[in-house]
Amino acid sequence: MFLLVFFILISHSSANSVFEFCVADLSQPRGPSGYACKDPEKVTVDDFVYSGLVDFNNAENLSSTLLHNVHTPQFPGLNGMGISMAQERLMVGEVVPVHTHRVSEVYHVLEGTMLTGFIGTDNKAYYKTLNKGEVIVFPPTLMHFLINVGSIPSFATYTFACETPGTQVVNNAFYGGNLPSDLVEKITLLDPSLVHKLKKLFNGTN
Amino acid sequence: MFLLVFFILISHSSANSVFEFCVADLSQPRGPSGYACKDPEKVTVDDFVYSGLVDFNNAENLSSTLLHNVHTPQFPGLNGMGISMAQERLMVGEVVPVHTHRVSEVYHVLEGTMLTGFIGTDNKAYYKTLNKGEVIVFPPTLMHFLINVGSIPSFATYTFACETPGTQVVNNAFYGGNLPSDLVEKITLLDPSLVHKLKKLFNGTN
Amino acid sequence: MFLLVFFILISHSSANSVFEFCVADLSQPRGPSGYACKDPEKVTVDDFVYSGLVDFNNAENLSSTLLHNVHTPQFPGLNGMGISMAQERLMVGEVVPVHTHRVSEVYHVLEGTMLTGFIGTDNKAYYKTLNKGEVIVFPPTLMHFLINVGSIPSFATYTFACETPGTQVVNNAFYGGNLPSDLVEKITLLDPSLVHKLKKLFNGTN
Amino acid sequence: MFLLVFFILISHSSANSVFEFCVADLSQPRGPSGYACKDPEKVTVDDFVYSGLVDFNNAENLSSTLLHNVHTPQFPGLNGMGISMAQERLMVGEVVPVHTHRVSEVYHVLEGTMLTGFIGTDNKAYYKTLNKGEVIVFPPTLMHFLINVGSIPSFATYTFACETPGTQVVNNAFYGGNLPSDLVEKITLLDPSLVHKLKKLFNGTN
Amino acid sequence: MFLLVFFILISHSSANSVFEFCVADLSQPRGPSGYACKDPEKVTVDDFVYSGLVDFNNAENLSSTLLHNVHTPQFPGLNGMGISMAQERLMVGEVVPVHTHRVSEVYHVLEGTMLTGFIGTDNKAYYKTLNKGEVIVFPPTLMHFLINVGSIPSFATYTFACETPGTQVVNNAFYGGNLPSDLVEKITLLDPSLVHKLKKLFNGTN
Amino acid sequence: MFLLVFFILISHSSANSVFEFCVADLSQPRGPSGYACKDPEKVTVDDFVYSGLVDFNNAENLSSTLLHNVHTPQFPGLNGMGISMAQERLMVGEVVPVHTHRVSEVYHVLEGTMLTGFIGTDNKAYYKTLNKGEVIVFPPTLMHFLINVGSIPSFATYTFACETPGTQVVNNAFYGGNLPSDLVEKITLLDPSLVHKLKKLFNGTN
Repeated sequence: MFLLVFFILISHSSANSVFEFCVADLSQPRGPSGYACKDPEKVTVDDFVYSGLVDFNNAENLSSTLLHNVHTPQFPGLNGMGISMAQERLMVGEVVPVHTHRVSEVYHVLEGTMLTGFIGTDNKAYYKTLNKGEVIVFPPTLMHFLINVGSIPSFATYTFACETPGTQVVNNAFYGGNLPSDLVEKITLLDPSLVHKLKKLFNGTN
Repeated sequence: MFLLVFFILISHSSANSVFEFCVADLSQPRGPSGYACKDPEKVTVDDFVYSGLVDFNNAENLSSTLLHNVHTPQFPGLNGMGISMAQERLMVGEVVPVHTHRVSEVYHVLEGTMLTGFIGTDNKAYYKTLNKGEVIVFPPTLMHFLINVGSIPSFATYTFACETPGTQVVNNAFYGGNLPSDLVEKITLLDPSLVHKLKKLFNGTN
Repeated sequence: MFLLVFFILISHSSANSVFEFCVADLSQPRGPSGYACKDPEKVTVDDFVYSGLVDFNNAENLSSTLLHNVHTPQFPGLNGMGISMAQERLMVGEVVPVHTHRVSEVYHVLEGTMLTGFIGTDNKAYYKTLNKGEVIVFPPTLMHFLINVGSIPSFATYTFACETPGTQVVNNAFYGGNLPSDLVEKITLLDPSLVHKLKKLFNGTN
Repeated sequence: MFLLVFFILISHSSANSVFEFCVADLSQPRGPSGYACKDPEKVTVDDFVYSGLVDFNNAENLSSTLLHNVHTPQFPGLNGMGISMAQERLMVGEVVPVHTHRVSEVYHVLEGTMLTGFIGTDNKAYYKTLNKGEVIVFPPTLMHFLINVGSIPSFATYTFACETPGTQVVNNAFYGGNLPSDLVEKITLLDPSLVHKLKKLFNGTN
Repeated sequence: MFLLVFFILISHSSANSVFEFCVADLSQPRGPSGYACKDPEKVTVDDFVYSGLVDFNNAENLSSTLLHNVHTPQFPGLNGMGISMAQERLMVGEVVPVHTHRVSEVYHVLEGTMLTGFIGTDNKAYYKTLNKGEVIVFPPTLMHFLINVGSIPSFATYTFACETPGTQVVNNAFYGGNLPSDLVEKITLLDPSLVHKLKKLFNGTN
Repeated sequence: MFLLVFFILISHSSANSVFEFCVADLSQPRGPSGYACKDPEKVTVDDFVYSGLVDFNNAENLSSTLLHNVHTPQFPGLNGMGISMAQERLMVGEVVPVHTHRVSEVYHVLEGTMLTGFIGTDNKAYYKTLNKGEVIVFPPTLMHFLINVGSIPSFATYTFACETPGTQVVNNAFYGGNLPSDLVEKITLLDPSLVHKLKKLFNGTN
């Protein structure tokens, strides 16, 4: 009976390690392609499951803004997978100001009405109001924004084409960090009093 | 006033084409990395928006199963973006049988209770019951499955780390295509009567 | 004499480490792109040579099935090289049942007559009988199979477009691992008695 | 004499096309990985040479700002090469305001004294004054800037890790394009009068 | 009966095109990532099979050297697959002189005794005599060579980690092409009479 | 005031680690994709700046040849960035003999007149004399060379499409390393006396 013999051979010849995944071992240093892999013997299904997101069906009970990233450090199973996600809830009128990521983003409106858009390198803006159920894709690196222009709090998910999409919010970068005011003025063309005001708003050092 | 001069120079020296996106021109042949790009002059925001998905908040009105892929051919703006998505609704007890994709998948339960899992190349199964709000990542190529084990219809989205994830459903591949019955028997180890029955169920040629 | 001076400079300015290879140091944890590199000072030509394969010219003396993988863990020199191989011998009538890999495979028949094929995501099967000397390429992730339909034992090599191709045999995954019988039934559509029989054949836990 | 025979065989068996380069045929549509290749028979060394840059040794004769990109459309030989460059001259006090690229940039000061820096996704700024001969690397996507803080006009080259780095200047994107003023106000937090002033400065539509 | 409904939905929602392969349409121009795809409707299994190789078991009947490449132009099914192969037969004492490829190569001796090796960027040579059945991996770009040092004609296959590995034979490049003799002398350090002799041997223009 | 709340949330939800860079920690072993990352807390702007190059404006004071590589080990900030550079100065008549790199190179003449070129896999040479200010791109892996054919010392920079381009100089590889003379003779077709002479010139072992 050849078949049986053959199958057992396959089992034996395959290593007792699986190379299709590499759950992040956060205790080790990472490299350019991600974290070192956790010992496969100790990997369980829980390494591939993330339970920290909010239940969308109870969205109406939430009274505040929400942004929840599910990237490699929070979700070790994503390491090396080339994908990650986030969840967002915005109050009426609230804005996610202009920001960038290293990779593509798929934004999916689950609740509410969102004015969204991005700007091309030729400075042409592509923007539209999305109703619930609609999806927009933001190309890698290009600046984009989201505004809840509806009459109820919004809910949305976004997914990224890498496990650590690296959000850089333009305003936070300028006014929320350690860049000295005189430099901020020069590279943004804004006058000192406005820069001072914005640095205060974003808790930047002065 | 140097600044103004400089800014205008940048505008002139940048080509009037944007390389951060490449909306698929479906009328041209595609290559290994995707479709040729639509003329950038004719690209509008609508190329980056997809409106064909179902509104999840009206899920309770849906009486039937749903699987809606949003990949490159349906959504030309995804071309070259390295990401795509799909939407799924399953009735109580319904199963998405074992299948594979070329790339990683992030599966997000929006409604219902789903028993989900995948199998490693060492034949070890990783499976768990997810409640709404939970997320699982399926590694590339590995076989995985989904079962609505709850008491209400489920709703979920999944995202893939490429624009054409290439779903291959094991049973459809075996019994729903043109593979002759005697070959199916040999490569699946099943006996002729069962193969005949399954081919009929899946509309395969005989 | 300028030339000599220049050449010596090149020798000095090049680091005494070679970045074109990265022999796997199996004692260290691996990451998503492979194992850490062995100290280049200790690398010898033997790290790039694999001697464990069978001599094909003595194939007629072999009375049994053979599957021999030459991937990273067995052959540390392949680390980071994006390629690996395997050797296979099948008795008359023997089958390598439906399985998948993460990457492309080139299958080369060195002896015998093989019925081989793969199934597309549209469920269309592409299959053909190969004579010795012929080659077939299996696309990444798509299920494929091999049957010795000739009158003598076969011999073949296959090569993969990565160093750890991750073989997943459909039947072994379903019936040879820890997936509970009731789940197997659900995701394969087979009835309990058949699943029980197959689990026994493939040594799966029950 | 075997060697001769063998060498001729190699010549014959190699196709009369070279796959190591793919000079852009700008008359054809491009795809996600670049332009279609010009007929190899018509490729000459001039396809790989770019002569439009300024001679740095005559920099002192230049009285104005200069930014000269050498990317794929201007230099067809770069197509598929994963690299491109640019040349820059700034007057005393002049600024290249905050901008982004899809890929890494190596900036090399050939003349002058430049205050340069980038901002991390944690809003921490990394900045330093570079003297001539010094080099800085800007990570992909992160916002960065350049200021001539010396007493003479500066000269520099920069190289990018792809053939079309996609410069997006933050101020030009906000104020120099078609984004309506009320949207600009919302996503930048600036008040209407300032946005109006900036839109005028950058020639944006209003 | 939910299952049936679901399966049919999958069939309908999957496009009638398969993205896991892209058989080269050689009549169209190629791009940096390969050729445009042949119309999937016209693809057959023969596009994935190559039948032009020699049967190794009849090797003893071959009286001459053989080098047979199986790359994309000869074998359209390899397009986009990231892998290709070649077959080689050398007479006793024959040499494949120093050459390079863009990608890794796995060399497998099927018959004979081969002295093989490569040279690192630190000029250290890694070389060894391989017996039949043995395998060596050559890192990308590094110069390597093969000599039949046995007493019988050799047979071997090699596989490459891309579909067009781009063989560059050092001697053919120097002496077999259009590079003028005075340039060859300068870049190789050889004197005019030897260069003249070698140009004649390799049929280079003079 | 929603905006403020939202911004602070973003700050909190982003990890205090930046994934856009991975400064090499040279004390740890590297893997196929580069070195492990230095602790982000200890990264400063100096990790991204390299100050070891020569000031080109003082080139006329240099009396000797110069080749200065700026790759990962010398410049840890390049780790994972996919780019690196080098600086070169050649005396009149001096030659950089035929060599290869793994990746594309952009060569930029800053001073002098250079005869440069590369050879295709079809043995066709592409060469030209570049004047100062001109740029040439060398495709990956293809052999190329540089000769100062002007009347003054030259100055140039080159940039590579990876952080460790791996220079392999053909003559140094043949005659400057440990390859035994009889092997060198066989793989280069040169006679013993010439090989002996060249090995002496390049300090190879004999």
